[in-house]
Amino acid sequence: MTTAFRRPSGRSADQLRAVSLEPGYAKYAEGSCMVRFGDTHVLCTASIDEKVPPFLRNTGKGWVTAEYGMLPRATHSRMDREAAKGKQSGRTQEIQRLIGRSLRAVTDLTQMGERQIKIDCDVIQADGGTRTASITGAYVALHLALRKLVDSKAIPALPLKAEVAAISCGLYNGVAVLDLDYAEDSNAQADANFVLTGRGGLVEIQGTAEQDPFSEEQFADLLRLAKQGIGQLVSLQRKAVMG
Amino acid sequence: MTTAFRRPSGRSADQLRAVSLEPGYAKYAEGSCMVRFGDTHVLCTASIDEKVPPFLRNTGKGWVTAEYGMLPRATHSRMDREAAKGKQSGRTQEIQRLIGRSLRAVTDLTQMGERQIKIDCDVIQADGGTRTASITGAYVALHLALRKLVDSKAIPALPLKAEVAAISCGLYNGVAVLDLDYAEDSNAQADANFVLTGRGGLVEIQGTAEQDPFSEEQFADLLRLAKQGIGQLVSLQRKAVMG
Amino acid sequence: MTTAFRRPSGRSADQLRAVSLEPGYAKYAEGSCMVRFGDTHVLCTASIDEKVPPFLRNTGKGWVTAEYGMLPRATHSRMDREAAKGKQSGRTQEIQRLIGRSLRAVTDLTQMGERQIKIDCDVIQADGGTRTASITGAYVALHLALRKLVDSKAIPALPLKAEVAAISCGLYNGVAVLDLDYAEDSNAQADANFVLTGRGGLVEIQGTAEQDPFSEEQFADLLRLAKQGIGQLVSLQRKAVMG
Amino acid sequence: MTTAFRRPSGRSADQLRAVSLEPGYAKYAEGSCMVRFGDTHVLCTASIDEKVPPFLRNTGKGWVTAEYGMLPRATHSRMDREAAKGKQSGRTQEIQRLIGRSLRAVTDLTQMGERQIKIDCDVIQADGGTRTASITGAYVALHLALRKLVDSKAIPALPLKAEVAAISCGLYNGVAVLDLDYAEDSNAQADANFVLTGRGGLVEIQGTAEQDPFSEEQFADLLRLAKQGIGQLVSLQRKAVMG
Amino acid sequence: MTTAFRRPSGRSADQLRAVSLEPGYAKYAEGSCMVRFGDTHVLCTASIDEKVPPFLRNTGKGWVTAEYGMLPRATHSRMDREAAKGKQSGRTQEIQRLIGRSLRAVTDLTQMGERQIKIDCDVIQADGGTRTASITGAYVALHLALRKLVDSKAIPALPLKAEVAAISCGLYNGVAVLDLDYAEDSNAQADANFVLTGRGGLVEIQGTAEQDPFSEEQFADLLRLAKQGIGQLVSLQRKAVMG
Amino acid sequence: MTTAFRRPSGRSADQLRAVSLEPGYAKYAEGSCMVRFGDTHVLCTASIDEKVPPFLRNTGKGWVTAEYGMLPRATHSRMDREAAKGKQSGRTQEIQRLIGRSLRAVTDLTQMGERQIKIDCDVIQADGGTRTASITGAYVALHLALRKLVDSKAIPALPLKAEVAAISCGLYNGVAVLDLDYAEDSNAQADANFVLTGRGGLVEIQGTAEQDPFSEEQFADLLRLAKQGIGQLVSLQRKAVMG
Repeated sequence: MTTAFRRPSGRSADQLRAVSLEPGYAKYAEGSCMVRFGDTHVLCTASIDEKVPPFLRNTGKGWVTAEYGMLPRATHSRMDREAAKGKQSGRTQEIQRLIGRSLRAVTDLTQMGERQIKIDCDVIQADGGTRTASITGAYVALHLALRKLVDSKAIPALPLKAEVAAISCGLYNGVAVLDLDYAEDSNAQADANFVLTGRGGLVEIQGTAEQDPFSEEQFADLLRLAKQGIGQLVSLQRKAVMG
Repeated sequence: MTTAFRRPSGRSADQLRAVSLEPGYAKYAEGSCMVRFGDTHVLCTASIDEKVPPFLRNTGKGWVTAEYGMLPRATHSRMDREAAKGKQSGRTQEIQRLIGRSLRAVTDLTQMGERQIKIDCDVIQADGGTRTASITGAYVALHLALRKLVDSKAIPALPLKAEVAAISCGLYNGVAVLDLDYAEDSNAQADANFVLTGRGGLVEIQGTAEQDPFSEEQFADLLRLAKQGIGQLVSLQRKAVMG
Repeated sequence: MTTAFRRPSGRSADQLRAVSLEPGYAKYAEGSCMVRFGDTHVLCTASIDEKVPPFLRNTGKGWVTAEYGMLPRATHSRMDREAAKGKQSGRTQEIQRLIGRSLRAVTDLTQMGERQIKIDCDVIQADGGTRTASITGAYVALHLALRKLVDSKAIPALPLKAEVAAISCGLYNGVAVLDLDYAEDSNAQADANFVLTGRGGLVEIQGTAEQDPFSEEQFADLLRLAKQGIGQLVSLQRKAVMG
Repeated sequence: MTTAFRRPSGRSADQLRAVSLEPGYAKYAEGSCMVRFGDTHVLCTASIDEKVPPFLRNTGKGWVTAEYGMLPRATHSRMDREAAKGKQSGRTQEIQRLIGRSLRAVTDLTQMGERQIKIDCDVIQADGGTRTASITGAYVALHLALRKLVDSKAIPALPLKAEVAAISCGLYNGVAVLDLDYAEDSNAQADANFVLTGRGGLVEIQGTAEQDPFSEEQFADLLRLAKQGIGQLVSLQRKAVMG
Repeated sequence: MTTAFRRPSGRSADQLRAVSLEPGYAKYAEGSCMVRFGDTHVLCTASIDEKVPPFLRNTGKGWVTAEYGMLPRATHSRMDREAAKGKQSGRTQEIQRLIGRSLRAVTDLTQMGERQIKIDCDVIQADGGTRTASITGAYVALHLALRKLVDSKAIPALPLKAEVAAISCGLYNGVAVLDLDYAEDSNAQADANFVLTGRGGLVEIQGTAEQDPFSEEQFADLLRLAKQGIGQLVSLQRKAVMG
Repeated sequence: MTTAFRRPSGRSADQLRAVSLEPGYAKYAEGSCMVRFGDTHVLCTASIDEKVPPFLRNTGKGWVTAEYGMLPRATHSRMDREAAKGKQSGRTQEIQRLIGRSLRAVTDLTQMGERQIKIDCDVIQADGGTRTASITGAYVALHLALRKLVDSKAIPALPLKAEVAAISCGLYNGVAVLDLDYAEDSNAQADANFVLTGRGGLVEIQGTAEQDPFSEEQFADLLRLAKQGIGQLVSLQRKAVMG
């Protein structure tokens, strides 16, 4: 990093925004977490449903699925409400599929019994990185809901193989930076979302050139930053689920 | 009230839940208010749009409209997400039409210029009375957004004729009670929503017999309670917009 | 009423339009009634369905539900066909929910057996007051369909607790008037729909300030007119179901 | 026809049902006609719209289009409401396209000016033959609306090249019969809908084998019957538009 | 035919385009056929589904149904994708209903067992006559799928009563011509689609006047041409299913 | 690779399926290419539209967008037709967004003028890897359409910065393999799609753990294979556009 380089937020290239995980935020959900990455705030809830989707009936296996939404004025200018338009955008569907896959990757579906956990990630305020914040908070909500099942003796042990957390990185003014906020995201040369387990295993990688193609070396820089940032997030998750 | 009567919450028949109005909750909206009636929490935002609907183009008049939504797990058991189902329920449409009409009743549309204010009321947590909480909070959001227009000299004066607030009342165990929570609402013999101005004018009345028809006297009791409760709400609104 | 006051139709303030209820209008429906309030004509049919909605299965209880529609050229200028637009408006949904609630309020759902009666109210011509005409005519259609069940010994007695009828009232040129037609409705200061039973019990009240808020006294005037008008409607219903 | 042959209705093979055309049935439409073929009743309205569809803008040409609907309980058993299902069936779309094409075939679109006439055919009661009754009644509604344009001097002369009417025929118990009612239609070996002009020109022919294929000779019998029946219908149309 | 007459393609009035039927084109379908009428190319597949629609459950009878689609750039200018628009056009529904009816007319539904065959006709390239090409190719796909059922001893014999094929004819420059291509179709005075069995039985006739009404004699000319053309198509079908 | 390792297809780990690119397959499209990766066949067309989306009007810039679809029986068992279901799946939307982004990454939108090129990728037959085959074929279609614009002097030079092609890789039985077919894809431990330019720049990376998380080393193996495979694809693209 050259001396001339400066992020809009004043953060250093490898610095996360202020991150907080507030477990139990929602009164009625079996598990919940309000996750905040700076001005990005996402309410994640986990709801236990004793029915599974048709393709799993009578298999003894469970399922974890996710839905994602944004309040219309979570953003700088108001966006149309998806319920009023009558359909979810491609972006919304892409994100909720990603959240679901990421959580299933660390859940032992065979051990959770024939039931479904539905995750809802609703963006209350958006300043970039909503999908990675969602995954990070959703893990906490899922963990808490599953522990409720353990506590009520519905299942013998927590069916989780590891933590899972996510972060975005990008090339901003030619420099690899961690945890893009909206100002950076809209001007990044490339950005990538990484989903890793608490043990460092790769779950999902999504890298996109926004302007020019990027090189293997640049991509390696992004991955290195992501691993470091996710390490910090997993520490916060561990504290949040202990409460 | 007989000695035998007791509300599930322990409140007296004419007692509101703890009500708070938190102005400026949303960072990006021109006006916003988080309104809480006990465990019912609604985030209300007001977004200024410099375009009006087609039927008002070139009339010099403005418009106020509202949308309403509920997070899927705002409630005791999870409800389907309207954006995923691809349509808003009849209940949602009924509520958002009510919010819009109530706000327009106190707004001088001619003085607000040819622009539209879009109100979004999103229920973060629901324990009964979400529509009346929405109206009460939305007034604060609308007021703040309009004041921003005055401050920027887009309009010369605040185009508001009065405050507007709303409360529900109902017959619970035969007794008229103020501000029903979910436990009361689901067992009420009748319930009614009242929308009044700060000067005591009636804007909307919606009364429904849930079990047996009710009498004129019972209805008069409900209205009397509503007037008292709305008086308290208007005081809170006046404080909230002064901040 | 001052001497200067005059309704567009020449009616006195407390005068209904010419009302007729023609039972048995539809050849195939189990119950039907063409209801006419002046130039407002609504065909109401009641169809017996031996299946109940899922939430009532195996409860032994029945259900009454309603749908509402308008022919595209029922009105002064043509409206888009809802089937072609692919969705029912908020107004349509609000009205059909109101019709269903009103009818259920006088039906003993436990005594009607585990079956459903579907009411269809289709506006053939609209000159104001279609929702109140619908409720008034739908009661006759429902009554006739239920009697068919009694006649065929499917149920032992008519599961109706009272008649139910509805009327609109409003403030027109400052005067409370009964049974608004379209010309009055579009210029009313306030209007209210009242649904009452044959015994005078209140089932639904919906009052709305269209321009300025109204006072309690004005509202009391509207209610007084409504009670008188509904008395006349119930007499007509009693004749219609005797035929 | 053998002595053994008997239609359910007792009509002879070449006998229409009682047909009536009641012009001016709808109060607000520019043209209207309630058409009745026995127990099949269709309300046809014609609405003048001074705008044409985009593909005709600035061509000076007009357009005639049609929509078709059925009240849910027009039929022996209740059908789902298309507006509630959120889409029109393939059958509905097929019928409304046919009505529109048939009317355009006799309209001089160049002489009607750059405006559109929207025909609505709404089936109040259905006992077979609703599409052919619709075309027959819609012609009357269209004629009346166009004459209103002539009377107001919007156009110099009636832009109609001929009358257009329609009838169904079918093979019932091996015999060619005219004007199928529902009981015949559901048991016909083949049925065909014919649309002809007042001068005997063929506008549309739709023949369908319901059970076994039919022969050229059988088809010729159907066409012969249709020509005779349409002759009678056109006489009725001429009287209806003279009123 | 006068000497002045000339078809855009140079074909004689009674000449088909080059027709080919390529059975087994699709690797996975139980039956398939790529049908080409000149530049009109349609891929027809037949998929066996061991479930029948609800109205046939437990009747022992089978069903044949069809769906039709067009690639967006099958045509001279790109058309909107129906999946993206969220609904099938009236034209699409009309065509797929026609294909289904035509195939069922030659299938012994009682002998095919309680299963369904779903035909998909997807237009890869369109130069007029896609619906008639679809029927002609779909018969081959259906035949092959049914033979697979015979070969696997699921049914004892081929449940087909005859071949079925289709062709369009029209009046072009006043002359009756066979097998309209797009250039002819868009300028035809009238066009008609004929569906006939291999034994000459009439299954469907759809004739439409595009400009002026046509006469009985003209219609007879079209039918005569169709019978001749379909004779050739049936010969090609017989070869295709023998392969 | 151990001796025990064997791909279902018998290919070596770094071996592509037989790939062919057939330019000009579609008669009417401005550019087109039938791309085949073994049994995966995708028809890609490029349609020039002289209008741009609203957000680009009067900017002088152009746009490239893509839509993706699959014939219902492209797959081993029939899938529901999206046009009949009335909406595109999340998977479809994800893929078409990916194709569009990938093509825009190599197009100089400023040099292509204010017009839009719409790419359609329709899967005729699917045996895994349809999204990467689509991108590879779509580039050829886009190139040909843009050259048509150059040839007609609508733009001075080909506004393409590089070729773009895509391939999938995955971990199958613990071994990194190139170009997964369906049999491999459904049993892969992880799979990744890579989109690279002809110069080796990274445009998109999407890696997903299907069973267990994967390691950085494994991911590096996949990327190495992808680079090699894409090199071969780009050679084929260069030949295809020269034709």
